[in-house]
Amino acid sequence: MISIGIQGAEVIKTAGSFLLASHMHPDGDAIGSMIGLGLALRDIGKNVAIISGQPVPPSYHFLPGSEMVSTPQGVHGRRFDCGIVLDCTGLERLPEEVNKLFDCCGTLINIDHHVSNDFFGAVNIVDSSASATAEILYQVLSALKIGISPDVATNLYAALVTDTGSFRYQNTTNRCHLVASLLLERGADHHLVQQCLNEQKTLASIRLLQKGLSTLSLDQEGQVAWMTISRLNCLDEGCRMEESEDLINYPKSIAGVEIAVLFKEIGDHEVRIGFRSKSFADVNALAGRFGGGGHMRAAGCTVKGTLQEVEALVIDAARDYLQKKREVL
Amino acid sequence: MISIGIQGAEVIKTAGSFLLASHMHPDGDAIGSMIGLGLALRDIGKNVAIISGQPVPPSYHFLPGSEMVSTPQGVHGRRFDCGIVLDCTGLERLPEEVNKLFDCCGTLINIDHHVSNDFFGAVNIVDSSASATAEILYQVLSALKIGISPDVATNLYAALVTDTGSFRYQNTTNRCHLVASLLLERGADHHLVQQCLNEQKTLASIRLLQKGLSTLSLDQEGQVAWMTISRLNCLDEGCRMEESEDLINYPKSIAGVEIAVLFKEIGDHEVRIGFRSKSFADVNALAGRFGGGGHMRAAGCTVKGTLQEVEALVIDAARDYLQKKREVL
Repeated sequence: MISIGIQGAEVIKTAGSFLLASHMHPDGDAIGSMIGLGLALRDIGKNVAIISGQPVPPSYHFLPGSEMVSTPQGVHGRRFDCGIVLDCTGLERLPEEVNKLFDCCGTLINIDHHVSNDFFGAVNIVDSSASATAEILYQVLSALKIGISPDVATNLYAALVTDTGSFRYQNTTNRCHLVASLLLERGADHHLVQQCLNEQKTLASIRLLQKGLSTLSLDQEGQVAWMTISRLNCLDEGCRMEESEDLINYPKSIAGVEIAVLFKEIGDHEVRIGFRSKSFADVNALAGRFGGGGHMRAAGCTVKGTLQEVEALVIDAARDYLQKKREVL
Repeated sequence: MISIGIQGAEVIKTAGSFLLASHMHPDGDAIGSMIGLGLALRDIGKNVAIISGQPVPPSYHFLPGSEMVSTPQGVHGRRFDCGIVLDCTGLERLPEEVNKLFDCCGTLINIDHHVSNDFFGAVNIVDSSASATAEILYQVLSALKIGISPDVATNLYAALVTDTGSFRYQNTTNRCHLVASLLLERGADHHLVQQCLNEQKTLASIRLLQKGLSTLSLDQEGQVAWMTISRLNCLDEGCRMEESEDLINYPKSIAGVEIAVLFKEIGDHEVRIGFRSKSFADVNALAGRFGGGGHMRAAGCTVKGTLQEVEALVIDAARDYLQKKREVL
């Protein structure tokens, strides 16, 4: 159970104006949490501004209240009683022009679920056992007896769904399901969320998937699987590289595979690499060999070279890593 | 809330031996419900047999207790105090040799969540608002104060996950999430379930997906999307046709598409067709034009002809259906 603390509760109750923001390239949890909290505070008569360095991606425009999110320019020169930073491990992860705005805020509140959060707030509501920041927000709103409207619930439910891969990822807990249940009870629009998140793909992104799958390879032991996405393929299909984010789940989904790798050609002789592991491999360590990092089960790095060169280099390293693991066992 | 009734509760408490079964070609809810209930009854000292016309598919062997499922021959000649049929709309959906066995049972209990259930039991515990039979079972076990072990919880959680598409389908309710939460609290192994259900795919099934996606087509208005799977593709990849079940989600996932169609060549001049609709189209009616049926949002039929002939015929009908809808609006 999270603790808001007396100071946090007092600030939220008494402050009249709030500035809400989240990390660069906001994901579903960041966006749903900002809008959900923004709507809930507005519903009790607070003055709320939500700012983002990047506009809300079109795939999240369905969220009720998404029009509340504005650019840093929109609030330039204004002062706020309270600043709330959501789903963000440290202030350096805020877009620079957003970070500056918090100088014009009274108390800074930090609400997050990342284990690496650096407690940058005057008030820190951080719980790394929460599946998503939205899960913490539900508890904060309940504890403060702030009403949760259907629109607030829809935003928080969408945030839960995106951060847990619709309850498939390992961060899904009994509390996460309980909060999901309570949000649906409060009128979260399950159909809207699932349809807009899963059934609004572009034809181009599906064609890119098809081209990606045609490159799917498996090593001799069947433990390393990988795919490549070339810039040409992206251009051919009129896709943005971001649309290939979840492709890494395909090599990972194969029985027996321990390490999945996705190679994306992001520039001339520059390849972005995503790693996933299933059970025991530490891909954080593997990505570290190439100057990258992340978590044990999900990590990434960027390597200079052609797709072919980088593919050979990295797959060799992954196989070598597993070979050493096998020798130890 | 479901009601077991005094008779149902009495039978389950007093009976010493139970025969459990479900419908032909059992899915995740059928299998998880049978094993989950079987384990729970065995835990309180009951004698339990679980029978299935078809063996448990390898993809469900991970379920604790899956070895309890046997063939009808295994219990031939035995008598049981109580027979429980799970997740089955009517007795005619039981494999014939299983159906016969229920003649040698005392009270017949029918536990199901399908709206078309025909109340064939002496005791009927039917709730069409439940997302899965496992959701009802959780309530039955709780009401009877029968303990739910981690293994029972894992089976019921797996059943919920499969019948709701990991909480993505429209049958997901607040109660469904609440039961999921309580099952995880009781020790359901979320990681095992999600990993075994989502990450044990064959390389062949992914190659079949790639070939299927290469046939993806969209009509001029972008409202009908379809894919074809030829027998040759299946043979080439060494796939069983069943491994193509969820491919229809890809054409359905495209923004703007209302009707998705999957054509599978199941024999010489014989094509199995799956339909899905997103918002308004009645694919039950559409499948009906070809002698098939189902639900408004999911239906199917089988049509004689070559893939090319059947594709042209059915896509014309789907476009014609939508054209008429547009004229009415």
